[in-house]
Amino acid sequence: MIGRFKHGDEIFYGNVHDGRVSSFENGDISSFELSQLEILPPTVPSKIVCVGLNYMDHARELGMPIPDEPVLFIKPPSTVVEHGGRIVYPDCSHRVDYEAELAVVIGKRCKNIDALRVDDVIAGYTCFNDVTARDLQQRDGQWTRAKSFDTFAPMGPFIAPAEEFCPDDVRIRSRVNREIKQDSSTSNLIFDIPYLIEFISSIMTLEVGDVIATGTPSGVGELQRGDVVEIEIEGIGNLMNEVV
Amino acid sequence: MIGRFKHGDEIFYGNVHDGRVSSFENGDISSFELSQLEILPPTVPSKIVCVGLNYMDHARELGMPIPDEPVLFIKPPSTVVEHGGRIVYPDCSHRVDYEAELAVVIGKRCKNIDALRVDDVIAGYTCFNDVTARDLQQRDGQWTRAKSFDTFAPMGPFIAPAEEFCPDDVRIRSRVNREIKQDSSTSNLIFDIPYLIEFISSIMTLEVGDVIATGTPSGVGELQRGDVVEIEIEGIGNLMNEVV
Repeated sequence: MIGRFKHGDEIFYGNVHDGRVSSFENGDISSFELSQLEILPPTVPSKIVCVGLNYMDHARELGMPIPDEPVLFIKPPSTVVEHGGRIVYPDCSHRVDYEAELAVVIGKRCKNIDALRVDDVIAGYTCFNDVTARDLQQRDGQWTRAKSFDTFAPMGPFIAPAEEFCPDDVRIRSRVNREIKQDSSTSNLIFDIPYLIEFISSIMTLEVGDVIATGTPSGVGELQRGDVVEIEIEGIGNLMNEVV
Repeated sequence: MIGRFKHGDEIFYGNVHDGRVSSFENGDISSFELSQLEILPPTVPSKIVCVGLNYMDHARELGMPIPDEPVLFIKPPSTVVEHGGRIVYPDCSHRVDYEAELAVVIGKRCKNIDALRVDDVIAGYTCFNDVTARDLQQRDGQWTRAKSFDTFAPMGPFIAPAEEFCPDDVRIRSRVNREIKQDSSTSNLIFDIPYLIEFISSIMTLEVGDVIATGTPSGVGELQRGDVVEIEIEGIGNLMNEVV
């Protein structure tokens, strides 16, 4: 696993193994106890490209038609929050939902990537919570406001490197206050990751660190202030955030 | 006027006056002929927040209801192109439109700014073309794909500093191959700039260099490959781009 950390004033990427973090900076190897470090979001994206309605059962539960092509929206970088950080419930919403998602982290600047070549541009995978003000989503028609509040994109805790992780059939779950709410597999994606990267990179240049959030399965539901929400993906880890 | 320029390998901001550019770097003053320099986009935004349907007549021409609140969408940084740069017509669209807009450039990181205090956070104003694949906008429902192709956010040529420019009633025009297509005034905005900044900053933190595109008046129409499109705003300048 690869993480991004803060120690004193220093920010660095490091390898996480057995509760220890080793980093390579200026030719030196440093090693820390994970508990000594502040965990930061594992990437600093220039954009987060999200795919709506990409699990059949979730489109049905929202009463939306199954799309012929991926439906895209963008969360700005200001939405990002780290594992352990707080999700701030906005005063102007009365219904804020969790959405468990597998996120792809881009490792190479790219445009017009063929689905057969996406391995060249994926750095790895992380857990993502596409927090959504459902009432505003329904009121606005356009999803941007509902998805773009500060802290509405928890991600992490770490990145599973592409060489060590196969995303085709892994269990994805969300829990609220330890109770399981969503429990599915990435094998249920309507548009798979190679297709999504070909589609999105035909529209826009992807930059190193950009995130593609691949959609959420059925079982979405609401959060209350004080709740602890977790997104767990088999082989990656458990992303935990409190709602305040 | 403030611009961003490239000279050799060096990128810098400079003051534009009478065809000359002066820059302050490391305490030295350099001065160039404008024609010696490559004009870059005048800002490097972390996000471009756009307002849809913000002129009454444009909402009517699209057959959309007049919104009670601003409708937002986001264009990612990868859409930005400079004055003189090319707009690339995507193969997957058969109807690409220009949209003349006044854009606000943020000068101070901010959140929850009161409409009465927005002067504190505005660096200046520039011309913006919210290029849109109209057919994809209608097909997708969500506007993100239609608005997010590379080169779909021409901006510039320069920034009129907030101290020298009043945005309340300035003429805004677009031309295609020198023929006037849109001709309106920013006095026709449904939601004015102070209201927009209060509204948007209540949702998301705005960063230095971020752009708020305030919407387009009536008269939008399509572009063809080979067209030259211009967005002119009184007191700012004329943004010109070729479609290829």
